[in-house]
Order: sequence, then structure tokens, then C-alpha cells
Amino acid sequence: MTSMRAAVERDRPIGVFDSGFGGLTVVNALRQRVPNESVLYFGDTARVPYGSKSPANVRRFSREAAQFLLSRDAKLIVVACNTATAHAAAELAAELTVPVVGVIEPGATAAVAATRSGRIGVLGTAGTIGSGAYDLAVRRRLGEPGRVYAQPCPLFVPLVEEGWTDHAVTMRVAEEYLRPLKEVDVDVIILGCTHYPLLSPLLQEVMGPDVTLVDSAEETARAVEGILSELGLERSADTPPSFTFFVSDSPHRFREVGRRFVGDLIGAVSHVDIDGFGQHMQRLASP
Amino acid sequence: MTSMRAAVERDRPIGVFDSGFGGLTVVNALRQRVPNESVLYFGDTARVPYGSKSPANVRRFSREAAQFLLSRDAKLIVVACNTATAHAAAELAAELTVPVVGVIEPGATAAVAATRSGRIGVLGTAGTIGSGAYDLAVRRRLGEPGRVYAQPCPLFVPLVEEGWTDHAVTMRVAEEYLRPLKEVDVDVIILGCTHYPLLSPLLQEVMGPDVTLVDSAEETARAVEGILSELGLERSADTPPSFTFFVSDSPHRFREVGRRFVGDLIGAVSHVDIDGFGQHMQRLASP
Repeated sequence: MTSMRAAVERDRPIGVFDSGFGGLTVVNALRQRVPNESVLYFGDTARVPYGSKSPANVRRFSREAAQFLLSRDAKLIVVACNTATAHAAAELAAELTVPVVGVIEPGATAAVAATRSGRIGVLGTAGTIGSGAYDLAVRRRLGEPGRVYAQPCPLFVPLVEEGWTDHAVTMRVAEEYLRPLKEVDVDVIILGCTHYPLLSPLLQEVMGPDVTLVDSAEETARAVEGILSELGLERSADTPPSFTFFVSDSPHRFREVGRRFVGDLIGAVSHVDIDGFGQHMQRLASP
Repeated sequence: MTSMRAAVERDRPIGVFDSGFGGLTVVNALRQRVPNESVLYFGDTARVPYGSKSPANVRRFSREAAQFLLSRDAKLIVVACNTATAHAAAELAAELTVPVVGVIEPGATAAVAATRSGRIGVLGTAGTIGSGAYDLAVRRRLGEPGRVYAQPCPLFVPLVEEGWTDHAVTMRVAEEYLRPLKEVDVDVIILGCTHYPLLSPLLQEVMGPDVTLVDSAEETARAVEGILSELGLERSADTPPSFTFFVSDSPHRFREVGRRFVGDLIGAVSHVDIDGFGQHMQRLASP
């Protein structure tokens, strides 16, 4: 009886949430890294973006998202949004009984492993950069001599969603945002927003071949693999894994834009009214 | 007794709502056009932007905003957001007992009055343009021979909020978005988003001096003036009018960005939890 229950437990999906589409880069990375895992995705497209919103609201939104994923039996929760990780991941980890993985710690670890000069740049939304979360995570690993240079890039998300990933305008915006990081000669840049991997070729061109770009999506998938293995939570079923998508705005638009991120992986997308999950969650919250 | 009540009624504030900051251009226009009126503003900064959201969600958000303004005694409601006007103004007008003024009809009227060639361009968010609301409003006034050319400009709002209103990047983006309108030789362009008036000088430069830009904010204020006068709802008190601001996200950020729109007019800004207004509103909704 116990072992059967354990088998069922470990066969539950990984829950992933993001403010919208960006977290799909994490889904892609999970599919590469832990290909036998099922994934349940929630994109809060009715309230996207989180990057310009206050910490208190981002925390509320994140709790509602986590509660929704738990209600659908997630065995582990990936906070696949840098802003939500910055403002809410630690709190969720303390409140929930399933493991919670954010995108910031894995990216910071990889950046510190990759740097030679100890000068690390971070790109992110206004919310992520303003939170100082990367700064803290990198410094904690890097020690005193290292330096972190944080640069908010509020136009990158709208540019990616407009599909202008290799457009002259985007190049011009990137040159402007990255100039301060070139001036201080960083050798590693953390892409601190899940949209940014789609700009990797362009960002690499602006920074030159000697700068390493750290994709937090990949590093996060690696962290998830480690945790599943440590806790014996790898999916054991030999049926194909399932990929299920929920959004708080129009499923139709999500399917369209989502294809840019994960291609045909997006099949059925369902709508969920996320506002309703706030009250349940308050029971889990610490006072 | 009746006349005292009438005096109190007409002294109530004009309620204005928008998804965020853009509606402040309408507040500015109201201050010019009806300087004795008090204004109660709600910016839905927790859920901004509306332009990329589905019609159903924009309708729900708009109802909640209107219900909040009514709960604070608004005598007239201005839907100071083109996307919300496109998806929800007609419905609100049918449901509510106070007058409802959107930003689309006034802009369309002014554009038709200004055109010589009958070729009119409209710039807006994906939601506004996708709704076809301007197309319909202009055609209804213009008759068969006229043509409306609609152009979605999703990057303009983030560019304005980044403060890049006269930046080379914005010029380059404008050139790209406006190229199709130049090719068909429009002589009037409706700025179909309340953020866009801040780009007027740049847009005028791209289009040249012979093209008339129609600012829906100004036209809307003119329409409000007419309705107040027609219904005998002009404020009669000779005390200075009040300007009160509510937002669903951080009051602090609203004060900062808001100054770009209306300067020192923004004094106290309060937070309101707008999710709570959904249920009350359902009683007003038609089935």
C-alpha cells in the first residue's frame, strides 16, 4: 500500500507558473533535462506583467498561482518568473509542503561558476532588479572581491512579445541597456527574465564572444533534476508524460504566442479564473 | 429640498478610470476644459495593461472599476482607456444610471471633421485595433467613400512608460509602425490610446506637418463638457475642485510615473483592492 502510494506521488506533474509566456522557456528546459516528467503550467496572462507591479501584489498573485497548481496535484513547484521568485519564492518555500524552486538561485550559482573576473552583470525587469535578489544571491556565493552590475531592461519583454527578436530596433535598445555593463567589463551576464533567452543571439552579438550568457531556465531545470532525484520523486511511469496548460486570460492568444516559445508542445490550453484561489491560500499563509 | 439635493448631485466628482497611467491625459484635458469639476481617478495598475488582454477580462475589469467609482459617488463616468472603451463602454452605458463617456466616439467625430481626403489612420493597442471599434465609429460618420487604416502599436506604451518619448529608438519604432499609413497617404491620425499624446511631437515629425493628429483626450473632455451642460450637472460650488487618485497597485510608483503626465496635480494616491468590486457589480449586469 505504501509503495503504491509512493509511486502515485512521484508520478504527479511538476507545477510551473509564470506571469505569462516567459516560463515556457523553463518548460522547454525541463523537457530536455527531465524528459519523463509531466508538466502542469499556469500563465497569469490576465495580470501579466509582474515586472512593473508592487511586491505585495506579486506575492498575492504568486500564492494564488501556487494554490491552483497544488489543487491540481503538483509534486513540486517551479516559480518560473524572476519577479515572482524575487518577491515570493522564499515565502512560498516556507509555507508549502512541496519543494519550491525559483529561477534566481540556480542562475546565480551558474554565473559564479562561470566568471573569471568576478564581474557579473544581471539583466531583468524593473521589479526583479529593484528587489536586489540577484545581487544578494550572487554576492553570497562570490564573496567580497566580486561585483554585481544590475541593469533593468523593461522594453525587452514587449519586444520579444512583438516578435522583434532580431530586429534593428531591439539591437539598438540592447546596445543602450548593455552599454554600462560593457564599460565595466563584465565577463558573465545572467539573463534574469525568462523571456530573455529568446534574445540570446542578439545579446551575444552586442556583448561579443568572450562574455558568457547564463540562461536561468536551463540552470533551473538542472536544479529540479537534482531535487527530484534527491527526494526520490522522479516519475516512474513509462507512459508518455503529459503537458497541460492553464491561463487566466484568453487560451487562444496563449496558444499563438506560446508557439514561439515551445512550438507544437502546446496542445490544449484551458482558462482558469485565478482570483478565486486567493481565499483558500490564506489558510496556508503564515500570519 | 429638491433644489438642495440637485446642488449636491451636481457637485459630485467626475469618475475617470483607465488601466493605469494613460487616463491622466484625459484628467489633464478635463482640467483645461471644465476647470471647476472635481475628479476621482482610478488606475488599475495591478492589472495593467488592458491592451493585450481578452475582451471578456477587460469587460470584467471595467465593471469593477466603474462600480468602485460609483461607490465613491461619481456623477458621470469617463472610460479613459481606448481598450476598455472598445470592449466595455457600450455595455456600461446600458447598465449604469449615470452617463458613461468613452474615448472612441469623440475621437472619431473630431477625425471625420478634420479630414479632407477621407483617409484616416488610427493608432492603438492590439486590443483596441483588434476590436474594430474605431473602424466602425469612423465609418458610421464618414460614409462609404472614406477609408480607415488601423495600425496596432504595442511598443508605444512601454516606450512612454520608460520615458523615451523623444528617443532615437522610439523614432525608429514610429517610422516602422507609421510606414503603412504614409504609403496610403492619410491626412488625419487618431491617437487611439491615452498614452500616445505624449508622443505627439515625435509622431508629427514622422508624419510631416500636413497630417492632423487627433488627441482623443481633448475630444473626450469636450464631450464631457457638453453632457454636463445638457444635463445640468456642472459643479456649482465655488470652492476649489478636488482631485483624488486610487490605484490597485503601488501608490508610490503611480505618484512617480504620474507626474510625467499631470505634474504636481497628483497629491495623495490611495490603494484600493479592486478584486472585491466584482461581486457587487454582477447585480447591475444584464443577464
